[in-house]
Amino acid sequence: MTETLTSRQTPFLALDLVQMKANVAALRARLDGLGVPLRPHLKTVKCIEAARHILAAPEGPATVSTLQEAEAFAGAGLRDMIYTVGIAPGKLDRVIALRRAGVDIAVILDSLAQAQAVAGASRRAGLEIPALIEIDSDGARAGIRADNPLLTEIGGILHRDGAELRGVLTHAGASYACFTPEAHRAMAETERRSAVTAAEHLRTAGLPCPVVSVGSSPTAHTATDLSGVTEVRAGVFTLFDLMMVGLGICDIEDIAASVIATVIGHQPDRDWIVTDAGYMALSRDDGTASHPVHNGFGLVCDLDGRPYPDLIVRSTNQEHGILTLRPGSPATLPALELGARVRILPIHACATVAMHPNFAVLEPGTDRIAEYWPIMRGW
Amino acid sequence: MTETLTSRQTPFLALDLVQMKANVAALRARLDGLGVPLRPHLKTVKCIEAARHILAAPEGPATVSTLQEAEAFAGAGLRDMIYTVGIAPGKLDRVIALRRAGVDIAVILDSLAQAQAVAGASRRAGLEIPALIEIDSDGARAGIRADNPLLTEIGGILHRDGAELRGVLTHAGASYACFTPEAHRAMAETERRSAVTAAEHLRTAGLPCPVVSVGSSPTAHTATDLSGVTEVRAGVFTLFDLMMVGLGICDIEDIAASVIATVIGHQPDRDWIVTDAGYMALSRDDGTASHPVHNGFGLVCDLDGRPYPDLIVRSTNQEHGILTLRPGSPATLPALELGARVRILPIHACATVAMHPNFAVLEPGTDRIAEYWPIMRGW
Repeated sequence: MTETLTSRQTPFLALDLVQMKANVAALRARLDGLGVPLRPHLKTVKCIEAARHILAAPEGPATVSTLQEAEAFAGAGLRDMIYTVGIAPGKLDRVIALRRAGVDIAVILDSLAQAQAVAGASRRAGLEIPALIEIDSDGARAGIRADNPLLTEIGGILHRDGAELRGVLTHAGASYACFTPEAHRAMAETERRSAVTAAEHLRTAGLPCPVVSVGSSPTAHTATDLSGVTEVRAGVFTLFDLMMVGLGICDIEDIAASVIATVIGHQPDRDWIVTDAGYMALSRDDGTASHPVHNGFGLVCDLDGRPYPDLIVRSTNQEHGILTLRPGSPATLPALELGARVRILPIHACATVAMHPNFAVLEPGTDRIAEYWPIMRGW
Repeated sequence: MTETLTSRQTPFLALDLVQMKANVAALRARLDGLGVPLRPHLKTVKCIEAARHILAAPEGPATVSTLQEAEAFAGAGLRDMIYTVGIAPGKLDRVIALRRAGVDIAVILDSLAQAQAVAGASRRAGLEIPALIEIDSDGARAGIRADNPLLTEIGGILHRDGAELRGVLTHAGASYACFTPEAHRAMAETERRSAVTAAEHLRTAGLPCPVVSVGSSPTAHTATDLSGVTEVRAGVFTLFDLMMVGLGICDIEDIAASVIATVIGHQPDRDWIVTDAGYMALSRDDGTASHPVHNGFGLVCDLDGRPYPDLIVRSTNQEHGILTLRPGSPATLPALELGARVRILPIHACATVAMHPNFAVLEPGTDRIAEYWPIMRGW
């Protein structure tokens, strides 16, 4: 029996594949215009079937956030990837096994100790593990600054001691705190300049730097000049979410994944509607708490995806979500009876997707579920 | 090859089974002293093997938070359970299927519409679905107040129209905002009184009320009088977490589950240590943000479980966790080299456990992993 948006047991994660493909096509077209290829980040979907619609070719290129993703996507034919979490020496055996299986997986690092570990493992394995040096363009997480003398030291160890110095990589995560087109463009330019400057330092020191990799969904969607950049990485742009809406990177209509929930109760004295989508279905991410428009743990829509005015998920417990109007809203609480279904747009797609065992993929233009696509978990 | 705390690929979830069993024994002994049986909530572990060490008998009783848990635990022999999320009419077919398979599963509800749905489904199925009326003892989530006239109306529908009125149930979730023994005892008494008062109203109206079910880990651990109560539910007490430590319900040493992570980088200018346990391994739960002692997204210990002074997970991305000292701490950042491993105590055990595919169960007194126990997900 074909399940539909109204028949399948809730909560579940619905995927609008047409919208996801449109999101992918839009960024690809944008980057084509800038002359730089896209290396999609698969950490948002964590799903082999979804990746088929995201990648330019089954072989890649792609970006992954865990070695489990790397192994699973390699099993599905992916051959060109970067694992963009600083490499731990204890994980190099898995990288080597993938490379021996014909997968061109590169690692990233930002320290002498890591460079020595990667070079040593390369020598012992008799193969050159490619590594990119992570550049800190925003002070937000990891990497070294482009002008840090460590850069050429690390590059030298990789290049001379047995590994492959493949290039530099940066991620302007601080773009998630930019709320105007000007701020995003400035962040994109900072990201670009950091990476290109680092590449120039390496080349000046006589070291190779074929790859100059930048990216985040906000900067990928706003950069106007990518001179010197060889590839752009982005992930959340595939599905989009309320954080991206809040940053001005997309519209609500662009969000391709949502959680379907059922009304299971009311607290009329408090103007609350209770649903069965708690943090287990939505995640605990409240990434718009610092935004001008706070959406709690999700924005509530009808099953067609039209938002109810000011209706948000105010709070969650494990399997309960409490819907209320935003404080001070002039709207009235919609009459959602027991058993009514709503569609909740996620605050942060990566966090919400990871809570679910699969995507329920909608048949275009209908409320029927055409397929279920497994979402991986673990490491 | 037997994996150990230092060999298994990180991040992963380690379970100290000896501690979990001690936690279960402690609450059971406490409630034995008060003359009330425990109905453990299995939503915290979501794991058949763990449940075997939590339940008094394979048949139960137990509490579940999803019908998937109900079905999975029923498959493992559980025969007595309450599904403690307000029932949606569309889920009754699964409840009926479980009952037909010999499982005594009860539902909860707090509205006339739900009572009518449960009664109607009971008549159509030719069996009496047992239902408990959810009582709102704390204003925090769902249920009706004990003095709401709806109580006897709902009870009457269940009793007369084909279902089974099994009793009343309440959960003082507001106990998670109580920080002194006095406040917890007062909340436990409020919880007890609400449930017992509701039961009395039903009985006065000539309705049955065999079950008077109360519980939350804080109130279960602090109640001193449970007169009129027939069972206590609690879940997080099995593993405990930093929220429970913050509420004064347990000590750090009582926490039975932790996330093992590897150091993957440093930001010396910012006194940051970067690990591979991000929100995908820890969850986004920051439940101690409102506590006198805020632990960020986790408290960082050595592999033996000894906390590093004031070292917490300050922030997370998907697969990155940033460790820093608490603001203003006089401690020094520990010298954790690249590749070093740490043990991170969870803020909220239920949220952290659900991020993992399995528990790595430690062999008592060693750092060896004896078994892997799958953790379920989905609905």
